[in-house]
Amino acid sequence: MTRSLILAADTLLTMDENNHVLPDGAVLVEDGRIAAVSALAALRAAHPAVAVKKLDDAVLMPGLVNAHAHSGFLRGTAEHLPVWDWLTLHINPMHRVLQPHEAEAASRLCYAESVLGGTTTVVDMWRFMEGSARAAEAIGNRLIAVPYVGEHPDYDYFDTLDMNEAMIEGWHRKAGGRINVWVGLEHLFYADEAGQRRAIDLARKYETGFHTHCSEAEIEIAEFERRYGKRPMFALDDLGFFETPRAMIAHAVWLDRDEIELISKRRVSVAHNPVSNMKLASGIALVAEMLKAGVSVGIGTDGEKENNNFDMFEEMKVASLLGKLKDLDAAAMDSWQVLRMATILGAKAIGLDHEIGSIEVGKRADIIAVRTDTPRMTPVFRDGPYFNLHHNLVHAVRGSDVSLTMVDGEILVEHGVLRTDDLREIIAEIHRVAPGLFARRAAFLAENSGGSLQWTQ
Amino acid sequence: MTRSLILAADTLLTMDENNHVLPDGAVLVEDGRIAAVSALAALRAAHPAVAVKKLDDAVLMPGLVNAHAHSGFLRGTAEHLPVWDWLTLHINPMHRVLQPHEAEAASRLCYAESVLGGTTTVVDMWRFMEGSARAAEAIGNRLIAVPYVGEHPDYDYFDTLDMNEAMIEGWHRKAGGRINVWVGLEHLFYADEAGQRRAIDLARKYETGFHTHCSEAEIEIAEFERRYGKRPMFALDDLGFFETPRAMIAHAVWLDRDEIELISKRRVSVAHNPVSNMKLASGIALVAEMLKAGVSVGIGTDGEKENNNFDMFEEMKVASLLGKLKDLDAAAMDSWQVLRMATILGAKAIGLDHEIGSIEVGKRADIIAVRTDTPRMTPVFRDGPYFNLHHNLVHAVRGSDVSLTMVDGEILVEHGVLRTDDLREIIAEIHRVAPGLFARRAAFLAENSGGSLQWTQ
Repeated sequence: MTRSLILAADTLLTMDENNHVLPDGAVLVEDGRIAAVSALAALRAAHPAVAVKKLDDAVLMPGLVNAHAHSGFLRGTAEHLPVWDWLTLHINPMHRVLQPHEAEAASRLCYAESVLGGTTTVVDMWRFMEGSARAAEAIGNRLIAVPYVGEHPDYDYFDTLDMNEAMIEGWHRKAGGRINVWVGLEHLFYADEAGQRRAIDLARKYETGFHTHCSEAEIEIAEFERRYGKRPMFALDDLGFFETPRAMIAHAVWLDRDEIELISKRRVSVAHNPVSNMKLASGIALVAEMLKAGVSVGIGTDGEKENNNFDMFEEMKVASLLGKLKDLDAAAMDSWQVLRMATILGAKAIGLDHEIGSIEVGKRADIIAVRTDTPRMTPVFRDGPYFNLHHNLVHAVRGSDVSLTMVDGEILVEHGVLRTDDLREIIAEIHRVAPGLFARRAAFLAENSGGSLQWTQ
Repeated sequence: MTRSLILAADTLLTMDENNHVLPDGAVLVEDGRIAAVSALAALRAAHPAVAVKKLDDAVLMPGLVNAHAHSGFLRGTAEHLPVWDWLTLHINPMHRVLQPHEAEAASRLCYAESVLGGTTTVVDMWRFMEGSARAAEAIGNRLIAVPYVGEHPDYDYFDTLDMNEAMIEGWHRKAGGRINVWVGLEHLFYADEAGQRRAIDLARKYETGFHTHCSEAEIEIAEFERRYGKRPMFALDDLGFFETPRAMIAHAVWLDRDEIELISKRRVSVAHNPVSNMKLASGIALVAEMLKAGVSVGIGTDGEKENNNFDMFEEMKVASLLGKLKDLDAAAMDSWQVLRMATILGAKAIGLDHEIGSIEVGKRADIIAVRTDTPRMTPVFRDGPYFNLHHNLVHAVRGSDVSLTMVDGEILVEHGVLRTDDLREIIAEIHRVAPGLFARRAAFLAENSGGSLQWTQ
């Protein structure tokens, strides 16, 4: 039997190639996919037997794609440090003591926050990701699981490529296709030569993506020069990382024009993390230049500890603001462009634009509804010369204005409430497990006073 | 009869001079003022007859002070232009056709949005402000009303100093002291010499503050040089503006070190507007330098059209992010400092730090409660080495997490719902009046093709 529903609202943003907007738009959802998109009256007439869910004072739009995140629960406890110091003093010691049940609790929390805020797809680089896959299966979000791999004697306290391969074997394309598993690497410096080679081979063997951090902080550039005699993107290319089916670089703040040209040619995508780049004082990525060169740039929140939330609406706003500040050009980074980065272009960055990222017939029904009956959306002009929905979705709205979140046709959030899991229990579980993690980390740090702020090789 | 209430929560941030935090803290509110601050158990024992309102999963803190805003309803319709072009093409034509009933509706909307998001005091530069005063009287927020004055033949379509004086006579220190009226000027260039002189005289005569925009965009600097042969702050000082009882400059993005030293010496305060300064591509203010020099710097959202919301939590986050980006220093603009700018330092910037801005005995009971039972506040560490409330109030929370807003002891918002006015009606009124304003503005623009992008003198 076909499971059908007509979902309708005052306005529908398709985010198709023309950014087409439908007043009184509706979507016919059948078996988790979009079967028709039209005005409500037309859909109702053509499908009189199908139930209609009409949302008042709301706009329908594609679910948001968070192109780079980390599950976690260090929120607000690792502050005021530049990225590499912060890694050494707070984050890496956490990785040394993290246990699988803690990692799973972290993913449940972060995916719950994500879907409540209108994010339907999360690219999560995290640990022990069988637990993350179970969390995504329960909560219902789409997940690109990217194990946080270190394959180097000095970084032997992350996930391994063996774990990554097992994760691919166990979960790639599972949960009805909602879960994909990529090959991950914390950073190129976190793998020795054999590890680097094997990461590439794994991505090719399983025809899956490869994701890593690179060129986040300026200090990396000199270190790449010292190790490889070239800039980071050229080093990654020479090593073979851009021969994987899909490579996506997180941050990419310090690329020069030649590197942008290279990654465009090699079809490498980028996850832009404006809040994190400002908070960790990393710098301003050349987003407009990458977009102009044809690079698929998605937007990501980065982790809960470097943001400190998973609100993709806020991230869109900061992407807009930072793009305008960069060359003091108020016309830069226009609102439609920012919305595209958070939806269809993010989907393209992860190779899923044929499936998600816009409301178009044949795609999976990953759809959200955003309330317009709030002061910050007033006035609403749905058409005509003052049409302002795109500007206010980027600059006025926040994730808490999302009233409904649907993935694969399933309603995960309704009236702003998580339907698929118990939010109070998710939060309570974090408070049960967090003290243990912090205590073990403190014990580790007491025994290993501080650690080095230098890379080892 | 004394009206008393004990308001309590899991944690209380006093924002006193030591940023003292009280676990299980409570406030005894009597006749609109703070009569005692202590642990709940102690207050309960000392005042057994007083009713207790205990909020679970919440933190109490002082209400936020929005140091610079404009009522309005152009939200999302005036985008992608630098500040002076934007003024000429969108904003000034609006001022030419704005009518009092529209201005009043705008203030109702913006004050409702403010108190719902935890802002208890709004410095509003706006038009026909008797309507704004009525809106503040009804909604219950504290208001610094600053008429948007033009006193110049070329800018004869703003409020006048006559209107400003009438507004002072009618509303200064009214509504139980909740409403104060200052002298306003859109910009120094919007007044002729006689107007400038009279603005200063008015502020002195009524012993009230003076507020204007200055040094928002770099192009102002050359124009001040041409007109006055000096930089803006020195020109304002020479003209006598810093002889007013309290002068506050909005934006102050392009001050040099000498100007910072000058305004510190002359006790001139600054309203910092990070979102607006990024969105209109104005630049990065030297906030850390101003704070170090002892300048009272508050934080403001600017108007709905340049932000596009009135969320002071978001504004705090962007203030933190922009401060860290400025010199690529992740330790800059620490979270306590940002919280102080949005509370006690903002209160000091407007000369009300003896009355509001912290939860201390004798002050007015302007208090808000922020929910902590959300994913973005998880985990919460209320004390100990991982204490993270300050970091997450700045970086994770948004205004929609505010569950209770109290001004002068009156509860304006409870369970996130506006109690003092009808929010649906406020929004409906905007949708009734907005089309008329836009139509009159379009007609004006059609008859006066474009207008000049140059200043006139």
